[in-house]
Amino acid sequence: MAKQLLGKEVAAALNEKIKANVEGLKAKGINPTLGIVRVGERPDDLSYERGATKRCDTLGVAVEKFLLPVDVTQEELMATIDKVNEDENIHGVLIFRPLPKHLDEAAVIKALKPEKDVDGITDGSMVGVFAGTKQGFPPCTPQACMEILDHYGIDCTGKKAVVVGRSLVVGKPAAMMLIKKNATVTICHTRTKDMPSVTREADIVIVAAGRAGVVNESYVAPGQVVIDVGINVNDEGKLCGDVKYDTVEPVVDAITPVPGGVGAVTTSVLVGHVVEAAMRTVE
Amino acid sequence: MAKQLLGKEVAAALNEKIKANVEGLKAKGINPTLGIVRVGERPDDLSYERGATKRCDTLGVAVEKFLLPVDVTQEELMATIDKVNEDENIHGVLIFRPLPKHLDEAAVIKALKPEKDVDGITDGSMVGVFAGTKQGFPPCTPQACMEILDHYGIDCTGKKAVVVGRSLVVGKPAAMMLIKKNATVTICHTRTKDMPSVTREADIVIVAAGRAGVVNESYVAPGQVVIDVGINVNDEGKLCGDVKYDTVEPVVDAITPVPGGVGAVTTSVLVGHVVEAAMRTVE
Repeated sequence: MAKQLLGKEVAAALNEKIKANVEGLKAKGINPTLGIVRVGERPDDLSYERGATKRCDTLGVAVEKFLLPVDVTQEELMATIDKVNEDENIHGVLIFRPLPKHLDEAAVIKALKPEKDVDGITDGSMVGVFAGTKQGFPPCTPQACMEILDHYGIDCTGKKAVVVGRSLVVGKPAAMMLIKKNATVTICHTRTKDMPSVTREADIVIVAAGRAGVVNESYVAPGQVVIDVGINVNDEGKLCGDVKYDTVEPVVDAITPVPGGVGAVTTSVLVGHVVEAAMRTVE
Repeated sequence: MAKQLLGKEVAAALNEKIKANVEGLKAKGINPTLGIVRVGERPDDLSYERGATKRCDTLGVAVEKFLLPVDVTQEELMATIDKVNEDENIHGVLIFRPLPKHLDEAAVIKALKPEKDVDGITDGSMVGVFAGTKQGFPPCTPQACMEILDHYGIDCTGKKAVVVGRSLVVGKPAAMMLIKKNATVTICHTRTKDMPSVTREADIVIVAAGRAGVVNESYVAPGQVVIDVGINVNDEGKLCGDVKYDTVEPVVDAITPVPGGVGAVTTSVLVGHVVEAAMRTVE
């Protein structure tokens, strides 16, 4: 039976570190604050906002909300971005996307200061991930994968890591972060030939294919660590990952469940970024 | 005997395309122009400048030089960057680096407009490479590798490509460009264990290790295409690549020589970028 890599354990450990950092900041008179920019009332956004707000509350991080009507003009939205950029009391900013179609999302992203970009969406943050520098912040999901590896003491140096998926939000940044951890990294995608033969050679497999159950027992081998980034709803209406858990789990050494894996870590990563952003202002 | 992938053949084909594009631009009254910003008189810079200027001349691209003394102030240099940014008659800019130590190179790079960044050094260009979009321009050396593959009809889709080296100027961008070409890409580096076992599995190997002769016959297998990015000087004072040509060439299917391989293509790529930058202004 594989070891379960549990998101809540990783999040709990992260939360302890974050709390200690928040205390350190408050002792210096700094109140770490997340600014949330939301346009409209999309249920997914509201749900994520509730989770993030709750996590911020628990960890002593303030939340300031900038709620705009679904028909907000570009000018009003840009003015809001200027406001959060200029407000020294807001350390990190989360902008819900996609924005309604009448808005120029690229211009909004371009306007946000990378040093407040705790969600890793600006050019500055992307270059930080690509170059392996501390410019901006990496997107929360791939970093959550790294936090899981770190928490469970899985050293990547010299290991073979395979990333399934080449998206800009997960696959590519995850690959760059694994390279920084000295893994030999292979990126697979829909055009890869005989993917099972590639993934079976890995020590660590990060699956961000975006399709339910695409990685089955033929893709894995004993001794492997499998991190499942997928969040899908199956035919029975249940949450499931990109990995066929029931048949893969008996083969491998360690695996993240869905739900309860990567997804349970991302909010803590986000709040950790806000606190880190606040700490960088006094460095 | 392996097929030699000759840089001069690739450059000749690129030059024909560039010339046609230059004619098209001139018919519209646009005179594609490269701005060169050079601080001091470093021999390497002068040598590259001569090559680039000559190539521009041959292809009908103008060159405007901004030559600054080695003790130029940051303010003067930044004013020069502003000037080339604002000058509509300059389409691409090459800044020689590293700059003298008293100058803030990061600030200079940040100031340059990505749309004129024909050498791929700005954040905007890097994000373009990482995201696979047409923002800015990729660095010339990894693109020269892709031009060689394209010229010789080597399709990457579904192929296994291994990049040796994880630098920000060659290894990482080459990997991103190969992913865009639908290859399954592995990035190796100094911390990779048993690198020969990894590179032997590849269909295409791009070597950017930065060390003479590090890839020998044990790293390769029949049927492979090997692109050698290295430029080193060996004990006898001769130019040589990162690949041990004499012992690797008899094993593989196709290989670039050094000199005469990748290095012979980069100047044409640079000039091609200037012309592309000029074309983008009228799109």
